[in-house]
Amino acid sequence: MNYIPKPDGTITSPAGFTAAGIACGIKPSGNPDLAVIQSDVPALVAGAFTCNSFQAAPVLYCKQKLARSKTARAIVVNSGNANSCTGPDGLQDAVAMAAKTAECLGIQADDVLVSSTGVIGLALPMNNVLDGIESAVRELSRDGGAAAARAIMTTDTATKSIGATVEIAGTVVTIGGIAKGAGMLAPSMVPHATMLAYVTTDAAVECAVLEQAVSNTLDQSFNRITVDGDSSTNDSFIALANGRAGNAPIQPGSDEAASFSEAFDYVTAELARMMIMDGEGATKFVEVTVSGAKSKEDARIGARTVANSTLCKTAWFGADPNWGRILDAVGYADISVTPDRVSLRYNGLPIVLNGQNAGTPVQDQVDILKKRQFKLDINLGVGDESFTYWTTDLSYEYVRINAEYHT
Amino acid sequence: MNYIPKPDGTITSPAGFTAAGIACGIKPSGNPDLAVIQSDVPALVAGAFTCNSFQAAPVLYCKQKLARSKTARAIVVNSGNANSCTGPDGLQDAVAMAAKTAECLGIQADDVLVSSTGVIGLALPMNNVLDGIESAVRELSRDGGAAAARAIMTTDTATKSIGATVEIAGTVVTIGGIAKGAGMLAPSMVPHATMLAYVTTDAAVECAVLEQAVSNTLDQSFNRITVDGDSSTNDSFIALANGRAGNAPIQPGSDEAASFSEAFDYVTAELARMMIMDGEGATKFVEVTVSGAKSKEDARIGARTVANSTLCKTAWFGADPNWGRILDAVGYADISVTPDRVSLRYNGLPIVLNGQNAGTPVQDQVDILKKRQFKLDINLGVGDESFTYWTTDLSYEYVRINAEYHT
Repeated sequence: MNYIPKPDGTITSPAGFTAAGIACGIKPSGNPDLAVIQSDVPALVAGAFTCNSFQAAPVLYCKQKLARSKTARAIVVNSGNANSCTGPDGLQDAVAMAAKTAECLGIQADDVLVSSTGVIGLALPMNNVLDGIESAVRELSRDGGAAAARAIMTTDTATKSIGATVEIAGTVVTIGGIAKGAGMLAPSMVPHATMLAYVTTDAAVECAVLEQAVSNTLDQSFNRITVDGDSSTNDSFIALANGRAGNAPIQPGSDEAASFSEAFDYVTAELARMMIMDGEGATKFVEVTVSGAKSKEDARIGARTVANSTLCKTAWFGADPNWGRILDAVGYADISVTPDRVSLRYNGLPIVLNGQNAGTPVQDQVDILKKRQFKLDINLGVGDESFTYWTTDLSYEYVRINAEYHT
Repeated sequence: MNYIPKPDGTITSPAGFTAAGIACGIKPSGNPDLAVIQSDVPALVAGAFTCNSFQAAPVLYCKQKLARSKTARAIVVNSGNANSCTGPDGLQDAVAMAAKTAECLGIQADDVLVSSTGVIGLALPMNNVLDGIESAVRELSRDGGAAAARAIMTTDTATKSIGATVEIAGTVVTIGGIAKGAGMLAPSMVPHATMLAYVTTDAAVECAVLEQAVSNTLDQSFNRITVDGDSSTNDSFIALANGRAGNAPIQPGSDEAASFSEAFDYVTAELARMMIMDGEGATKFVEVTVSGAKSKEDARIGARTVANSTLCKTAWFGADPNWGRILDAVGYADISVTPDRVSLRYNGLPIVLNGQNAGTPVQDQVDILKKRQFKLDINLGVGDESFTYWTTDLSYEYVRINAEYHT
């Protein structure tokens, strides 16, 4: 590991980035609901977006923008309203958000990316949003990362930000990220989240290096997390690299690219982990690995099916090792399974061997399941492929949050 | 409709059938946990069983038995223990249950079918089971259907039984059924349940007629219900036809076969409906139809995805019409969707038209969602195929039941 974790890092840690988060009245609570992130020079941009058939207006906008050009100067984000299933008017609103941000910053509209998160199907209160953008741009600062992280929250109970530094050919570059998560969370972005995540870096990189860092990081970060199996219409992950660290641009396939990616992966994995730790109503963090699978896809589907099973999740909430529910979920996952080859371990403790009770005392199992965090390993015994999901239990609080989060 | 519903009907309503349900000590609660159903003459049998990769011992046993012969005299069923993931010893126990039942009845072991439901992964307490079979056989009676229905329950709060009569070429034949459901419920039996359902009839039928009635009824009964999306290792549906009504045997493709199937479908659909009404923690019965789909499979997947979405189910629990969550679920269902063609109605009231808010006052929507039962219709507008699921909301009580139902 060549990078240095920076637990206090955020999107304004890398040189040349400013941010702000303010309240403009989208949320009835009066909480912060609008953020702007800016780079003082044009930055390379790469992103990944939801695969949901219903793509929110800001997602459509960003994808069109990225098809035109791969540089940007700013991102504008609102919470409290998803601007999703809002038709052509919604798309106009996303365009207007970009245009207003550009006007306030004195840059081109095409240099602005847009995200939204919140309730689906309502028109954005554009007067509030446009006034909010003016206020946010006035407040942009080098220590605005925390305020931006707060302004993108919906049912999150805590802000999520992290950073890392890594030396690239003698020059220290910095990577910072923020995210929001909590519910409607089972990202599935191109090549497969309402999660939003933004990563900034002052590294100078070739475009391909940033794009590969984004696509390669998904399977070990945002695409391995699930709270409720519901991937959203707004899930977006955007990375900006502005080159202000002054290193020689990182070339594809180089050792420097590997070091950069390693640090990048650390930032995204930590953001993903924070989302699960703050999943709606979550009292447990469960790492579900399916190994010994015939194919990567089998391993992915198997792990996801267990991670999304309401019977497994409620059992974990009750600290019940109920391995029958786990095997049951593996069994209906429509993957290649040979029952008498399957083994199952909690934190390495054998629970099932060859498809049958391993005879481990139940109390030893319960002791593990009472922990805030534990690992479940399911080995199918029919191949060499594996995949890991991070998930939560399913608690009374999950039901409360989602039965009361009204339209 | 040619049949006459018999709300008080049960498996002992048809001529020639006796049943019993007793407590033999499998359940720590001391509640009834062993049932026997018997026909006084050999009956034709047809069945459908879980598609889970992990097939419980009694499921394996029944499938092997049905491959050998298509007649039977009795079914023995225990609750409180699934005899699943119990390996070769479990299969021996299933065989021993059949043998003991046969011995007590003075029939061949191969004329007995076996089912189990309950906790997965524990060995059956065979002393209790074998003594229980003796007691149950002693208590077999023409009015034992209700006791059998009670003895197969697990987390069910009520017994489930129903019947119908239908005239076949001048002869009245009777059909009766019992079932248990409640949780781990999203049957998927060959051609796709822990649901157990048993239907008896005194009709004389050709084997093909009974087999077709079983396979054709699944999509409009047990395969359209879901509580938690978890299909079980034990799901079984078994139909027995003993010919005691004395009608001329019903031939495949005949008008009589159609009348018989119609009555048969009524019985299975009512049993499926009762399972959903008594789904774990359920406070609502929601009928989710996806129509206008490009293919039947798209309609089925779309309806199932919405019916299983924890976000949709918690919204219904909260009487929240939150249509954004519904469209979101349709959107990640991996089916053919054109967003601006999608419409959505609760009990016929338009909520979404052409992918956007139909402007119906929210209170009108909430009034529908406060009902115990309502319909959700999602028209994709891209084809002519449709499929209907029956599902529940997701309540605090669901979490309580499943966090406390310990290993």
